[in-house]
Amino acid sequence: MLVNGRAMRTVWQPDDDPGAVHVIDQNRLPWELAEARLTTVGEVAVAIREMVVRGAGCIGATAAWGMWLAAREAEAGGEFRRGELEAAGERLRATRPTAVNLGWAVDRMVRETRDAATAREAAQRIADEDAAACAAIGRHGKGLLEGLAAGKPEGAVLNVLTHCNAGWLAFVDHGSALSPVYAAAAAGMAVHVWVDETRPRNQGARLTAWELEQQGIAHTVVADNAGAHLMQTGQVDVVITGADRVAANGDVANKIGTLLKALAARYYGVPFYVALPTSTIDAGLAVGVGGIPIEERGAEEVLWMEGPDEGGEMRRVRVVAGRSGAANPAFDITPAGLVTALITERGVCAPETGAIARHLGVL
Amino acid sequence: MLVNGRAMRTVWQPDDDPGAVHVIDQNRLPWELAEARLTTVGEVAVAIREMVVRGAGCIGATAAWGMWLAAREAEAGGEFRRGELEAAGERLRATRPTAVNLGWAVDRMVRETRDAATAREAAQRIADEDAAACAAIGRHGKGLLEGLAAGKPEGAVLNVLTHCNAGWLAFVDHGSALSPVYAAAAAGMAVHVWVDETRPRNQGARLTAWELEQQGIAHTVVADNAGAHLMQTGQVDVVITGADRVAANGDVANKIGTLLKALAARYYGVPFYVALPTSTIDAGLAVGVGGIPIEERGAEEVLWMEGPDEGGEMRRVRVVAGRSGAANPAFDITPAGLVTALITERGVCAPETGAIARHLGVL
Repeated sequence: MLVNGRAMRTVWQPDDDPGAVHVIDQNRLPWELAEARLTTVGEVAVAIREMVVRGAGCIGATAAWGMWLAAREAEAGGEFRRGELEAAGERLRATRPTAVNLGWAVDRMVRETRDAATAREAAQRIADEDAAACAAIGRHGKGLLEGLAAGKPEGAVLNVLTHCNAGWLAFVDHGSALSPVYAAAAAGMAVHVWVDETRPRNQGARLTAWELEQQGIAHTVVADNAGAHLMQTGQVDVVITGADRVAANGDVANKIGTLLKALAARYYGVPFYVALPTSTIDAGLAVGVGGIPIEERGAEEVLWMEGPDEGGEMRRVRVVAGRSGAANPAFDITPAGLVTALITERGVCAPETGAIARHLGVL
Repeated sequence: MLVNGRAMRTVWQPDDDPGAVHVIDQNRLPWELAEARLTTVGEVAVAIREMVVRGAGCIGATAAWGMWLAAREAEAGGEFRRGELEAAGERLRATRPTAVNLGWAVDRMVRETRDAATAREAAQRIADEDAAACAAIGRHGKGLLEGLAAGKPEGAVLNVLTHCNAGWLAFVDHGSALSPVYAAAAAGMAVHVWVDETRPRNQGARLTAWELEQQGIAHTVVADNAGAHLMQTGQVDVVITGADRVAANGDVANKIGTLLKALAARYYGVPFYVALPTSTIDAGLAVGVGGIPIEERGAEEVLWMEGPDEGGEMRRVRVVAGRSGAANPAFDITPAGLVTALITERGVCAPETGAIARHLGVL
C-alpha cells in the first residue's frame, strides 16, 4: 500500500542488502516511519516477540524470511545442516503462542527448504501469496459491503467498525479486515470506519488510524467502550475484524475485545465478518473455545502508555494507580455462532465445520 | 472511607473555613491527594464540568453545596433574592447533561431553601442522606454477594467485575457498586475485584484501583477489552456497576462500555447488578433507551493520556495517530432486560416499571 505516496510492504528482502530482511518497525508507528534491519534468526525472533512486526500474515511472512536467514546460517561452511533449520523453527514458533500463521510458515519453510536458495524462493512465495490472498479477500469482501450499501439510502455513508489492526500492516500487503474497505473505497463507495483504540497496545489508534489516513479513508477513533453504544444508535452497518487463529469449527481467536464486539453485533443485528487468509485456519483444531492458548502479556502494557508529548518527545506515563497490578490477556475466542461469515481469499464461508472443510477442499 | 487511615468524604463544608466547600480533586488522584476549595457557584460549575468531582452522588452533593454558596450570594446585602438562586441552579444543571442526581439536587435545594441558613441545612442533609443511602446499598448488596459465595467451593474467592468508578469517590461516602464489596470484605468474605480501566478517562485504573488499594481489597486492573474473555473462562462471578441515570422502566445510563459488559454477562450467565441510590432514578422518564441525552465529551480525552513519567513528572502523551480524529460519547444505555436487579438503599428491585414504582412507593 501507499506510504506518503510510495508503495511499500511490511517485510521485504532488498536486492541491495543481500544478507538482510527489512521490516517496518510497527512499535514506532505512527510517530515515525522507521525500518528495522534483521540479519539473524535471533533478531527475527526478538522482532516478533517485541511486536516490531505483528499481525497474522506479517508474523508469518517475517518468520518465513527468518527461516531463510536460518537456512543461510545452516549452509555456512558448505553442507546444509537441516537440524539447525529445524531448531531455528522451534525458536521462532515459541515467540507468540496464539498466532497460527507463525507455525504454518515455519512448517512450510522446513518442508520447502533444501538450501539457502530454495529457502529464499519459499519465503518470497509465502510473502507473495499472503499479499495475493489479501487482495482476493478485498475483492470478496467488497461484494459484501456493496450488498450492505445497497440496503441504505442513496448516497449514505457505509459505517464499518473494526477492532485492532487487520490492515496491510498486519500482513505483507492489503490486509484482511481493511482490504474490503480499501477495495470498496477504490471503487468509489462512501465508507467511514470506526476505529477501536484497542487497549492496551492501541493498535487501532496507532496503526489502523495511520493506515486509513495514508489511504485517505474517512475514519474516527473511539475508545473500545463505545462500540455497543454506536450499534445501539444505528451508527454501525457492519463489523469486520481479522483473526490470529480460526479453529476448524469457525471459532475465532483475535485481539482481546473482539468477543465483546461480536456479542454486541449479535444483539443489535449488525453483521459480524471475520476476514483472514486460509493460512490462519488451524484445520487440526476441532474447537477454538477452550482449545487455543491465550497469550498473557506483561502487566506493564496496561500500567503504562507511551506516546509523544506536546513537544514531540516520546514519553512513557503511568496510567494506573501506583500499587495496583494488572492482567493482560492478549486474545479472546469468539464462538463461531456469533460470526456471520468468514471472508477468505477463496470467498465467503459459513463459520461451521462442514462448510469450512469444503472451503479448504479437504472434504 | 479511609485515606491513609484517616476518614474522609469527597465533599464537605469545613467548620474552620466558613465560606467555602472543600472537595477531593479527583483529576489529581491517584497521583496526589489534593483538596480543591470552592467559594462561588461559578467555581462549583467549573469543578463539575471539568470533573474535579464526578460520579452520581458526588456531583449531586457538590451541586447542593454549590447552591448553598449561591444562596449566600443571593442573600448578600440583605433580602434573599430567590431568582438568583434559581439562575444558579440552571447554571449548575447545564454542566453535565446525563447525571440525574445533579438536577435532582438542584431542584431539592430550590425547594428547601428559604435563605442561606436553610440552604446550608439542606445541603448537609443531601450529603448525609447520600452517605446513608450508600451504606444501606452496601448492606443489601452484601447479602447478594453472600448468596453467590455460598454457591462456590469453601474458601474460594468471589470475583467481582466493575466498570468505571462507583466507589465512595463517586458519592459522598461508601459508594454504590463498591459498597457491597466493602461490606462483604468487612464481614470477612474473600473477594477480588476485576477493575475495568475505563477509557478514555481511566476512572477504573485511577480511582477504583486507588480506592480498593486504600481499603486493602484484592484487585486487578484490566483493559476494558478483557471482560468477555474473563467471563467466558469462568473468572467472573458477578458484575456490579453504578448508574448515572435510571429510567422508570429500569434502563440504565452509565459510563460508556457498561452496555458491552452487560451483554457479555447475559451471554455467559453472569449476574449483572446495578447499584444506585433511588435519587438516581428518573421516575419521570418512562424509557431510557433513546430517551437519555448522551454527553459527547471532547476528542482530546481520547487522543491524549496523562500520567506521571518514570521520574514522577506529570506528562500528557498523544496516543492516537497524528491527523486522526476521535469521538467520545461518555455514556451508554443498558436496556433493563440485561440487568439482573437494581440494588438501592431500600433493597433489591427488579428492573421493571411496576416493581420500580412500588420500590419508590409511588404505586
